[in-house]
Amino acid sequence: MPLPDRGLDFGDGLFETLLLRDGAPLFLEYHLARLGGGLRRLGFPDCIARVQQYLEQACTDIASRGWRGCALRLTVTRGGGPRGYTPPEPASPRILVTATHLERDCGTAAAPASLTVSSVRWPTQPLLAGLKHLNRLEQVLASAETRHCGADESVMLDQEGRVISAVAGNIFIASGGQLRTPPLTHCGIAGTRRQLVLERWAPAIGLAVEEAELDLADLVAAEEVFITNSLFALRPVACVDETRWANHRICRTLFHCFLEEIG
Amino acid sequence: MPLPDRGLDFGDGLFETLLLRDGAPLFLEYHLARLGGGLRRLGFPDCIARVQQYLEQACTDIASRGWRGCALRLTVTRGGGPRGYTPPEPASPRILVTATHLERDCGTAAAPASLTVSSVRWPTQPLLAGLKHLNRLEQVLASAETRHCGADESVMLDQEGRVISAVAGNIFIASGGQLRTPPLTHCGIAGTRRQLVLERWAPAIGLAVEEAELDLADLVAAEEVFITNSLFALRPVACVDETRWANHRICRTLFHCFLEEIG
Repeated sequence: MPLPDRGLDFGDGLFETLLLRDGAPLFLEYHLARLGGGLRRLGFPDCIARVQQYLEQACTDIASRGWRGCALRLTVTRGGGPRGYTPPEPASPRILVTATHLERDCGTAAAPASLTVSSVRWPTQPLLAGLKHLNRLEQVLASAETRHCGADESVMLDQEGRVISAVAGNIFIASGGQLRTPPLTHCGIAGTRRQLVLERWAPAIGLAVEEAELDLADLVAAEEVFITNSLFALRPVACVDETRWANHRICRTLFHCFLEEIG
Repeated sequence: MPLPDRGLDFGDGLFETLLLRDGAPLFLEYHLARLGGGLRRLGFPDCIARVQQYLEQACTDIASRGWRGCALRLTVTRGGGPRGYTPPEPASPRILVTATHLERDCGTAAAPASLTVSSVRWPTQPLLAGLKHLNRLEQVLASAETRHCGADESVMLDQEGRVISAVAGNIFIASGGQLRTPPLTHCGIAGTRRQLVLERWAPAIGLAVEEAELDLADLVAAEEVFITNSLFALRPVACVDETRWANHRICRTLFHCFLEEIG
């Protein structure tokens, strides 16, 4: 990659993780909508048309390789510029696409995950909350800790100890026929699959769903817990430390909504 | 630069901005101490010896070009690795050095700066407070706003509205013969020149100095305000919005301490 690049220097950029099936990106419009919103909030020039060209080219290439499943990382940085924090005006965004072959077929539900609670907490920053920007040191440190603990994933809390998310995904809890996920007003990443559960999949099965502040007591008292991200869609949670769940009924039902959408 | 690189992907790294005079880095031991502390906190393998080799090579090269003043950016990332947040174990850190020629001689005091108050606030994150890591979106957005306002610099507050720093530097206020700078326990970057004022330059002139929480009322009531960073050492503050200071006596006296140290 040519240097300097403000993505490397300051994390001045955004990314998306897209799941491709037979070279076709799933829920592309959701990813592009989030990316477009992020570009506006960071003051980037609109480069969505160019992003789409890059993606089409990458998808054609991946389809020709015969890859069934593929994780595509799309990165958009503010490009180069002079020394220092001040962004060039206008900026020339740089677009990078990286493809990783996936063995697992996304049509198969992921096995229930064992979670612990991370000691790494989200930073409080309403200005950047929801964005999938490149400043991800908390996720890096939390992931290293998760591996050290031997868990599959971790629950990440905010600075006040409220439940926000998994390290690489959003979190939902079900209690009394009601699905809840934390609001992302001061930290967290607004996941595309989280949005799909809220707007399409939970309504499709007639399940009430809302954003609600959750603490660890709400989590361990839940009847069912699952996490969402773009690579596995929905994944049941088997345990958070000593608290175990054998019931994954809602997660499995919502996963069928996902399967129906992808055909 | 070879890809993937976790510095680009996640801001998984640290940097230092060193001032070189005739090819010699100023206060190198302070920069290396901060960098070494950051590497440990992020769980990087110790690569300080290799960093020193890179720096020596860069300094030799810059000296041979006859550059009087030079800003050297040293970046250390966790290097490459497989897809996803989890860092490889062991990581192979990547070291990058970029040099920018400076017209201004660091022996000349910078002109007093006009400041505004940024609407961009520091995130609350005790885990990363003090580190000069690569997650710097707040500085980018605050710098863009500063330029838009026509100011030289901006005061950055924390989420509770306390004064923390300038965008690219630390801040000190003087009142009643006492120098104060905000503690950096939950956000901010622990600047090398801030440390030098605290540990060496203020004591050298017999001036009491302490870390103390400051709000905007303390700032505007101060008898004198100045900011510090590695490129200008100490810079007087002429105004913060409508509040003006003509008195820069302490800043000038401390700048002489700096001049005496660099010879």
